[in-house]
Amino acid sequence: MIDSKNKPKTDLAGILNQYRDFVKQELFPIDLKVVQGPFKSYLPQLNALREKAKKLGLFAPHLSEKEGGLGLSLLEFAHVSEILGQSPLGHYVFNCNAPDIGNMELLHLFGSDFQKEKFLKPLQKGEIRSCFAMTEPENAGSNPVNLSTVAQREGDHYIINGHKWFTTAADGASFTIVMAVTNPEADSPYQKASMVIVPLDNPGYQLVRNIPIMGEAGEDYFSHAEVKFTDCKVPANHLIGEEGQGFVLAQERLGPGRIHHCMRWIGICERVFSMMCQRAVDRELSPGKSLAEKQTIQNWIAESRAEINASRLMVLDTARKMEEQGAKAAKEEISTIKFFVADVLMKVIDRAIQVHGALGVTDDTLLSFWYRHERGARIYDGPDEVHKSSLARSILKNYQRK
Amino acid sequence: MIDSKNKPKTDLAGILNQYRDFVKQELFPIDLKVVQGPFKSYLPQLNALREKAKKLGLFAPHLSEKEGGLGLSLLEFAHVSEILGQSPLGHYVFNCNAPDIGNMELLHLFGSDFQKEKFLKPLQKGEIRSCFAMTEPENAGSNPVNLSTVAQREGDHYIINGHKWFTTAADGASFTIVMAVTNPEADSPYQKASMVIVPLDNPGYQLVRNIPIMGEAGEDYFSHAEVKFTDCKVPANHLIGEEGQGFVLAQERLGPGRIHHCMRWIGICERVFSMMCQRAVDRELSPGKSLAEKQTIQNWIAESRAEINASRLMVLDTARKMEEQGAKAAKEEISTIKFFVADVLMKVIDRAIQVHGALGVTDDTLLSFWYRHERGARIYDGPDEVHKSSLARSILKNYQRK
Amino acid sequence: MIDSKNKPKTDLAGILNQYRDFVKQELFPIDLKVVQGPFKSYLPQLNALREKAKKLGLFAPHLSEKEGGLGLSLLEFAHVSEILGQSPLGHYVFNCNAPDIGNMELLHLFGSDFQKEKFLKPLQKGEIRSCFAMTEPENAGSNPVNLSTVAQREGDHYIINGHKWFTTAADGASFTIVMAVTNPEADSPYQKASMVIVPLDNPGYQLVRNIPIMGEAGEDYFSHAEVKFTDCKVPANHLIGEEGQGFVLAQERLGPGRIHHCMRWIGICERVFSMMCQRAVDRELSPGKSLAEKQTIQNWIAESRAEINASRLMVLDTARKMEEQGAKAAKEEISTIKFFVADVLMKVIDRAIQVHGALGVTDDTLLSFWYRHERGARIYDGPDEVHKSSLARSILKNYQRK
Amino acid sequence: MIDSKNKPKTDLAGILNQYRDFVKQELFPIDLKVVQGPFKSYLPQLNALREKAKKLGLFAPHLSEKEGGLGLSLLEFAHVSEILGQSPLGHYVFNCNAPDIGNMELLHLFGSDFQKEKFLKPLQKGEIRSCFAMTEPENAGSNPVNLSTVAQREGDHYIINGHKWFTTAADGASFTIVMAVTNPEADSPYQKASMVIVPLDNPGYQLVRNIPIMGEAGEDYFSHAEVKFTDCKVPANHLIGEEGQGFVLAQERLGPGRIHHCMRWIGICERVFSMMCQRAVDRELSPGKSLAEKQTIQNWIAESRAEINASRLMVLDTARKMEEQGAKAAKEEISTIKFFVADVLMKVIDRAIQVHGALGVTDDTLLSFWYRHERGARIYDGPDEVHKSSLARSILKNYQRK
Repeated sequence: MIDSKNKPKTDLAGILNQYRDFVKQELFPIDLKVVQGPFKSYLPQLNALREKAKKLGLFAPHLSEKEGGLGLSLLEFAHVSEILGQSPLGHYVFNCNAPDIGNMELLHLFGSDFQKEKFLKPLQKGEIRSCFAMTEPENAGSNPVNLSTVAQREGDHYIINGHKWFTTAADGASFTIVMAVTNPEADSPYQKASMVIVPLDNPGYQLVRNIPIMGEAGEDYFSHAEVKFTDCKVPANHLIGEEGQGFVLAQERLGPGRIHHCMRWIGICERVFSMMCQRAVDRELSPGKSLAEKQTIQNWIAESRAEINASRLMVLDTARKMEEQGAKAAKEEISTIKFFVADVLMKVIDRAIQVHGALGVTDDTLLSFWYRHERGARIYDGPDEVHKSSLARSILKNYQRK
Repeated sequence: MIDSKNKPKTDLAGILNQYRDFVKQELFPIDLKVVQGPFKSYLPQLNALREKAKKLGLFAPHLSEKEGGLGLSLLEFAHVSEILGQSPLGHYVFNCNAPDIGNMELLHLFGSDFQKEKFLKPLQKGEIRSCFAMTEPENAGSNPVNLSTVAQREGDHYIINGHKWFTTAADGASFTIVMAVTNPEADSPYQKASMVIVPLDNPGYQLVRNIPIMGEAGEDYFSHAEVKFTDCKVPANHLIGEEGQGFVLAQERLGPGRIHHCMRWIGICERVFSMMCQRAVDRELSPGKSLAEKQTIQNWIAESRAEINASRLMVLDTARKMEEQGAKAAKEEISTIKFFVADVLMKVIDRAIQVHGALGVTDDTLLSFWYRHERGARIYDGPDEVHKSSLARSILKNYQRK
Repeated sequence: MIDSKNKPKTDLAGILNQYRDFVKQELFPIDLKVVQGPFKSYLPQLNALREKAKKLGLFAPHLSEKEGGLGLSLLEFAHVSEILGQSPLGHYVFNCNAPDIGNMELLHLFGSDFQKEKFLKPLQKGEIRSCFAMTEPENAGSNPVNLSTVAQREGDHYIINGHKWFTTAADGASFTIVMAVTNPEADSPYQKASMVIVPLDNPGYQLVRNIPIMGEAGEDYFSHAEVKFTDCKVPANHLIGEEGQGFVLAQERLGPGRIHHCMRWIGICERVFSMMCQRAVDRELSPGKSLAEKQTIQNWIAESRAEINASRLMVLDTARKMEEQGAKAAKEEISTIKFFVADVLMKVIDRAIQVHGALGVTDDTLLSFWYRHERGARIYDGPDEVHKSSLARSILKNYQRK
Repeated sequence: MIDSKNKPKTDLAGILNQYRDFVKQELFPIDLKVVQGPFKSYLPQLNALREKAKKLGLFAPHLSEKEGGLGLSLLEFAHVSEILGQSPLGHYVFNCNAPDIGNMELLHLFGSDFQKEKFLKPLQKGEIRSCFAMTEPENAGSNPVNLSTVAQREGDHYIINGHKWFTTAADGASFTIVMAVTNPEADSPYQKASMVIVPLDNPGYQLVRNIPIMGEAGEDYFSHAEVKFTDCKVPANHLIGEEGQGFVLAQERLGPGRIHHCMRWIGICERVFSMMCQRAVDRELSPGKSLAEKQTIQNWIAESRAEINASRLMVLDTARKMEEQGAKAAKEEISTIKFFVADVLMKVIDRAIQVHGALGVTDDTLLSFWYRHERGARIYDGPDEVHKSSLARSILKNYQRK
């Protein structure tokens, strides 16, 4: 996995170019079609691309060389993540997509030998997919300690009961990691929950539905499920780490995840920005006069350029700080990039739609896909409002009342 | 049709309450399901509601009493339109939905006796639906004089060739009005085009597809078609008004249409606002602490209230001016409400989604439907940017260089 | 005073035109010079204008005809206030400026016969000026019940001790109304304070300084003082109303005051808007190409027009509601216009400065004066943030948790 | 002068700390008073501080060690500039203030030996001050080729006639550099102008006035003059570089100047940010409840933090690119930081004022000074709108119509 002790790549520029070429040549020509679905019908084609990526030595860039990856540092992977983010298929084809990458990190750091052998290895090879069941429809996600799902220890097993949703990519996955209350009597609400692995062929697990989101339920990797656990019995050795460590582990999972997400968003921004510029040049308003000559359009292009550049510099700077000083030291920066980049992302997409006119609201370009499916960026992993408050409170601790 | 000479309704408040009750009792319980579709499966239920509306004397409120309507003034109808706008089904059930209402206005004002008998009457009774083919994929809609579709006079007929899209609700409609160039040699680009009625069983007409828009192609009333006219031959008496009058007639159609649209948007805003407030009160962050206590949420509620109130007052004021002085005198106001209200609409929807959290991006509420399908509000009928420029240029004519 | 029972003016349009002419012909030519000061040097000229206003029957438009005014309704006066607001001198010359107009309203409604004779009458005639001492430097104005100033009853007198600032126009005034705690033991914090009249020749009163605000301390009417009350002894009959009524009376004073302020701001907006348009037309970028052709400038003009129109309609609507249903019924609207119009005001001024370029930051136009001295609009009479929260909380009372 | 060939400072952190200490200990305690003026009365105190800076080896950090400076690279100086920017006196005390620093750069690069000896050396030592006369009241600054000032060659002299304003710090300066048309017949408008040095004791030079800007005319270093040149005769060897090179030289002057300005703005942002946080903590709304607990305040703090961080990273990245690839290669970035940072600056100041409430609009803090005197940041050195357009046009050159 990504490790700050990895040696810096001396040929990073060359590696990045390989990713760039792959994304442009292999993914750009098909990604619009694939997102139009049905996704499963494209699985053979996508699997062939995964094989190609493996042959090129580009597969699973986040893994150590020993694990079959490239042994990149967090900062190096950040650059890769931006490139992959330019296509909705990028991270998937290279097996470094959420939620699998987060689950790999978790199991790598905290999984038992048994868990690594049974769940991590096939995940790293791209043989299976996984998911992560945390958010609950009945509880506000902005306060994650509100959890109703329970995993009760009975002998050598946990009996899980609960209701989750936004379990991304559950459809087609082999196992999920569930966040559930194991220690309701713990002193702190942050010590009540644990993470437990549930294979999805368990009879106590039910995929209620792929939630229709912004006009489509999707399927497989492109879906978010509502799931239920009813007296779902799993062996006690499916517990990750120790009881009560759920939130500690979740925190570990979130830090680098924020970097991956933000760089993916910046990748989207760059693709969208490029579409916006191309459209401005292509669209004639009257003979010889293109949209590109309109000052309002120019303003949007300039402001988007500034905001994307600012986003990238902030995320890379945060990654650097995480590498050098650890995720805890970069806590404020991690909150900052969450709300800053999510906001830029939605603004850039919105401007590009407006530049495209009627075409922009159709599904004939990727703009509609991102406009719809990235709206969640301002909500998931903690709504922007929560991050702003927590950043401000952290800053204000440095000031005492005079 | 709406006529400024209509006598003011003395019991307007009572009439509006009847509409409010109908919308709340008959439409709110079903509208989420209907927009989830398939729309056609709900046609029997919707037709039953139309019958009910007729019995209550509320059907086609925009028509004169002689035509079977209520004989409302533009300002009175504006109030009705806001109420109907609270449900995506409102205008449809009462047969005053776009594009039919605009077509009825056109035919009422400029149709020949033949056209009125054959096309207008069944439209007014809700027996058929119609559509309006103007926008072309190859030409920027912001400059409407860019038209490639041609209607060539040959003897007693017009031969139409062209490619249109965003022909709203073409699927299931009986006829369309087509905007086409009849007089390519006219002095002014504004005098080149005409409006011609094309019955949709014409073999020269082809519905290429219902365009997938923001995740769904929809069908019937809830769809926007791409259509083609290939040597499409219609009798010359299908021309509305005179040759070259296309843009003049379009202008007539747009003025009151702007009022209807804007009031419909305000109706959406009110429903969305109410959902946002209800969610804020319902959502617990911790025991006894709801989202409603968060100042950011309060800011959004306050700002939305202010902006919705401002929107309504501006649209009603514009309607009043149109009634009293005609659409031409209110040209600046008509541009103003277009961009002002469209912007408010999208801001209010966006805030409501954020308040709903993960639920807000699902299709389990109407928010996603409006977020997706009203994004076009800032584009259709002239993008906001065009209206701003034209408003400013009109204002600046009052200033001379010193 | 303004009274909803006043008969509507049948010739309102004519009256408004008289004000328009006066402002344009008498005030526009001199107002830039006067605000550059020193203000006192212009008092003879301004007094002559007041005499002229009296002769024309336009003086003190807010007073009843019996009191020497025009007997306007709140709504009628709102229109006058907008016109006067176009010049920084408007309200002053017509003796309807803050804080005098608010004090007149207070004394008219709640003053004793003695107070009316001694303080109200000369104020109405414009023979003296007054001020209002409420805000305290040590206490957050956003929570007005935080008051340190005390008025202790001793026999037939009150002994006042306290420190106030932003006592507008204290320099040159004859008396102030002081908000002070008289009943510290009252159950509610809203019943602790009273209003007491203090003649400014009282030895216990000290004008510490005219506070330098945004680059200038100003003087006389154009100033805001820091003042101190040290064992300041005034007769008990200087109490307005009854002990503990301070906040109730303040509330009465604020409602119509909000209308006056907001319409004054709209007047400023209109003058500024006009300057912006004129500058856009005048400023050549290259031969024959003016700033007015730039789309960004056009956007600002269009957005400003929309926002100013929206502001006016909202304020007039609020005034109408206050007239018809009383200030209490219009509580939400009164909060709404406060933050909405203050925000529009600052945005319009800011755009006009940008259009003026370097000239815009000089004191060679009125823009700098308003940019600096209206920044307070978002702060005084309750910061915008307080109004937003209180509006939202009032709205949310209509929603119950389901 | 700053030179990319300077050796990197190995002890940069230590040097920066020295500047930080100096600014906090020597400037923070006096700067509010000094900006309240009169500036000249503080000259002895400021000169003493300059001497102190010299003794500490911190004076003129931008100069090479040979010239008596620190020999910093552009990137290193950028860090210093941020620290100095935290006080309105910082750059002045260390003799690296605009416009002198730009003039030093110009003369260093393009001055003749005579000019270096006579004008540059005393400037570098801080013995004299200088100014730069470019902007003209009659011509739009956004199109700098619009110049009316003329320098006509007559024998061994230039005769200069023209009218300039915003000649910063002319009051008290020893010479100005004037931008004037020398070659009206040149092919390109960019080749018409030259730069000429005018000693200010020249009888053809007149300081018309220190322009009152945002409430104060200021004096000496804190002033911007309107000046006139009337048959102002200077020796031909006062020409800098060659005839027609005016705009080329101006461009050279602007690049690094943008970095200095932007870092200075970021310094202001940091001081203002700190004031905002301190105020939030200090201000009690009710016993035990401070402003810092309000979510709106927290939002402003979080957003400001994000925007300031983004600004700094962008400016430093631009400085790095300029060092590595030259100013031309960084042209887009230089435009980007201009409008991005100027916007952030004004937003942060505005929020801090609002957090300070009434105090924020007084001159009792530095907020008012910066609110007023940095408003020009969005205008000078090319208004933001010009930079946005030119950035967009430069980007769009990479896109061809398909």
